[in-house]
Amino acid sequence: MLKVYNYNQLSATEIQKLTLRNTDAGNEIRETVENILANVKQNGDVALREYALQFDKVTLDNLFTDENELAKLTERVSDEQKEAIKTAYQNIYKFHKTQFRQEEKVETMPGVTCWRELRPIEKVGLYIPGGTAVLPSTFLMLGIPAKIAGCKEIVVCSPPQKDGKINPFIAFVAQLLGVKEVFLVGGAQAVAAMAYGTESIPKVDKIFGPGNQYVTKAKTIIQSTTVTAIDMPAGPSEVLIIADESANPVFVAADLLAQAEHGVDSQSVLVSTSQQLIDETIAELEKQLPILPRSEITKKAIANSYAVFTADLLEAMDFSNQYAPEHLILATDNWKLITEKIINAGSVFLGNLTPESAGDYASGTNHTLPTSAYARAYSGVSVDSFVKKITFQHLTSEGIKSIGKTVEILAELEGLQAHKNAVSVRT
Amino acid sequence: MLKVYNYNQLSATEIQKLTLRNTDAGNEIRETVENILANVKQNGDVALREYALQFDKVTLDNLFTDENELAKLTERVSDEQKEAIKTAYQNIYKFHKTQFRQEEKVETMPGVTCWRELRPIEKVGLYIPGGTAVLPSTFLMLGIPAKIAGCKEIVVCSPPQKDGKINPFIAFVAQLLGVKEVFLVGGAQAVAAMAYGTESIPKVDKIFGPGNQYVTKAKTIIQSTTVTAIDMPAGPSEVLIIADESANPVFVAADLLAQAEHGVDSQSVLVSTSQQLIDETIAELEKQLPILPRSEITKKAIANSYAVFTADLLEAMDFSNQYAPEHLILATDNWKLITEKIINAGSVFLGNLTPESAGDYASGTNHTLPTSAYARAYSGVSVDSFVKKITFQHLTSEGIKSIGKTVEILAELEGLQAHKNAVSVRT
Repeated sequence: MLKVYNYNQLSATEIQKLTLRNTDAGNEIRETVENILANVKQNGDVALREYALQFDKVTLDNLFTDENELAKLTERVSDEQKEAIKTAYQNIYKFHKTQFRQEEKVETMPGVTCWRELRPIEKVGLYIPGGTAVLPSTFLMLGIPAKIAGCKEIVVCSPPQKDGKINPFIAFVAQLLGVKEVFLVGGAQAVAAMAYGTESIPKVDKIFGPGNQYVTKAKTIIQSTTVTAIDMPAGPSEVLIIADESANPVFVAADLLAQAEHGVDSQSVLVSTSQQLIDETIAELEKQLPILPRSEITKKAIANSYAVFTADLLEAMDFSNQYAPEHLILATDNWKLITEKIINAGSVFLGNLTPESAGDYASGTNHTLPTSAYARAYSGVSVDSFVKKITFQHLTSEGIKSIGKTVEILAELEGLQAHKNAVSVRT
Repeated sequence: MLKVYNYNQLSATEIQKLTLRNTDAGNEIRETVENILANVKQNGDVALREYALQFDKVTLDNLFTDENELAKLTERVSDEQKEAIKTAYQNIYKFHKTQFRQEEKVETMPGVTCWRELRPIEKVGLYIPGGTAVLPSTFLMLGIPAKIAGCKEIVVCSPPQKDGKINPFIAFVAQLLGVKEVFLVGGAQAVAAMAYGTESIPKVDKIFGPGNQYVTKAKTIIQSTTVTAIDMPAGPSEVLIIADESANPVFVAADLLAQAEHGVDSQSVLVSTSQQLIDETIAELEKQLPILPRSEITKKAIANSYAVFTADLLEAMDFSNQYAPEHLILATDNWKLITEKIINAGSVFLGNLTPESAGDYASGTNHTLPTSAYARAYSGVSVDSFVKKITFQHLTSEGIKSIGKTVEILAELEGLQAHKNAVSVRT
């Protein structure tokens, strides 16, 4: 069921191969996506209506669901569901709120003062997937930091459901966030609409959100050909669990399966110092998997997964850092001993009582995270992703005197006389 | 000399056209760059030596300058120059040091604790341009935050000079930073080498640094096709100066020229509430420009520049926010009245005694900044650019009880049963 490797018997090349994920899987669909982008750029709303008919099988009168319709749709959400969404909202808000912090001024030389100020990105676009799985949690994860940052315009796109309307849970989150309309557009065409603007949909400065390979390819093309930024490239979701003999195989198996049910290309990796734990976890997988509603998908993802046996936790951490997982679970009572050794990971779940699904929904951390080893250089989405940090500097007459000579010499040695003059005329 | 527009007579379309910069200027060179990337990926050092001969006109024995050679080269740097570089180093260090700050833990619910920890990006690649202009200041601006972040491996590439060695100022900065070797590679091939790795040059996780259009195109291709990140896409440099009647036309002209001398595609924009200031600045440009060593380049850049007359400072700021300048100078004694209105800018220079060149070299702020309106969504380089912020969460047994029900309901409504199970098995 789960392939098992022995870390000490793996060559560097084999480890590299095991930790490799395809980061440009969608390259064969580039042309299709480029055509969609070009069509939306040129034909705007007309193209969007065509794609709604072609891909979502609905004829749309309006390309958006307005405030009144949103309110009506929320009637389909039960009180218990509303409470759960509100609790998640509060936790996510509480944690992200601490990320918005103005910084202090620094006097680097007498009369030379420097600092940074946070400014919201004015116009942001949130893409909320809504094909086979509708993800209101993603809307919370993107909408809350956008509100905290103070973004002036929050444009939201999500594919229309079969009834030509937006999903009721999405509608309820929109209400909580104070978002007054949701655009009924999905896929690469949604990314195109927010990057170029159409008659109905405003052009934005940065596009956020996960999606299928068409959405991701569209985002990376937009990022490299226009001034519109993206949050990060996103590949299939993944988890790496480091477990020792203190771990519970029932919990470990449940966590591996939670990851695997996302999609057939998801990956669940177990790295353990205990051969017994590996064996018992595999036995548990065989028990828990068949009774899952998404067992077909999950089974394929598990076939795409593996376990690695290591001599100790440090070796396990070594493998994990090479893998650079989106989600890292430390299923050990000894997690305090190894957290400092974490170099590459998106979000970390500490100890045997912290399942990844807590962070997926409600612990407070963000679930929009770097996959496919992007965690080597990227962080997950946070309030930082919705602001710019602008540097400021002010020189007094004392300041220009303190720094003047230094600037003149440096400009001179780089051969930039006009740079030197800009100081000289002032001193 | 400088075209002058009246803001109130400009239509929205005209303003949009004025603020537009070409963000994909290098698209016609895409094929050339893709060939270079493929060649380096396949042939490694052999390809790098070929390009050194072809582009830099030197035959290289070693692809790097080592510690001993670096030390020898620094003998060509005068004591005065060394002092100036050290002063800049100290100021940049002092300001950037404050950006490295661990964050506090947040208890979002009883027993549910979340926080972020900073981790350096392990392997970073710095590209230091060294063609017609050699820029040791850029090496300071990238190397200092990399050191503060604690990056384990700092790979530096810069084109070889005519003597087949590295520029002595670059060598001196390397010494200050404790960088033990500098690779003699420039252009798109340097980006390729750091993205894919060669026999001599290590593969890195993120590539930083400005460069010509080949370098920039290589960076954007790497970003969209590999897991290697880049700092930001970089276009030609630019300044926007907001000036009122309190500004000094001699200073304003000097600042416009300092920007213009960078390259023929640089842009210097003056936005002023005073027609007299505009006239006097143009007269000053005619005085100062002809005597510059780089007057030919500067003249062409000024021809590519313009002035806008506005009714008041708020209107001026409005234009500036639409332009989203890399450098924004507030040449007015009233700068305190308008800094809050700044939405989009890379770095801001406040008052009549703060020239851009102070920030280019030594005030302490970073000079690697978003150009071409990327300031709408991007920030300049900082310590943030060299770290990941990894989220952590820990649940106690009280924690999993507090949050369990919420997670179960949310997993259920998204149709993800295994996500729900991961909680249920624990409660």
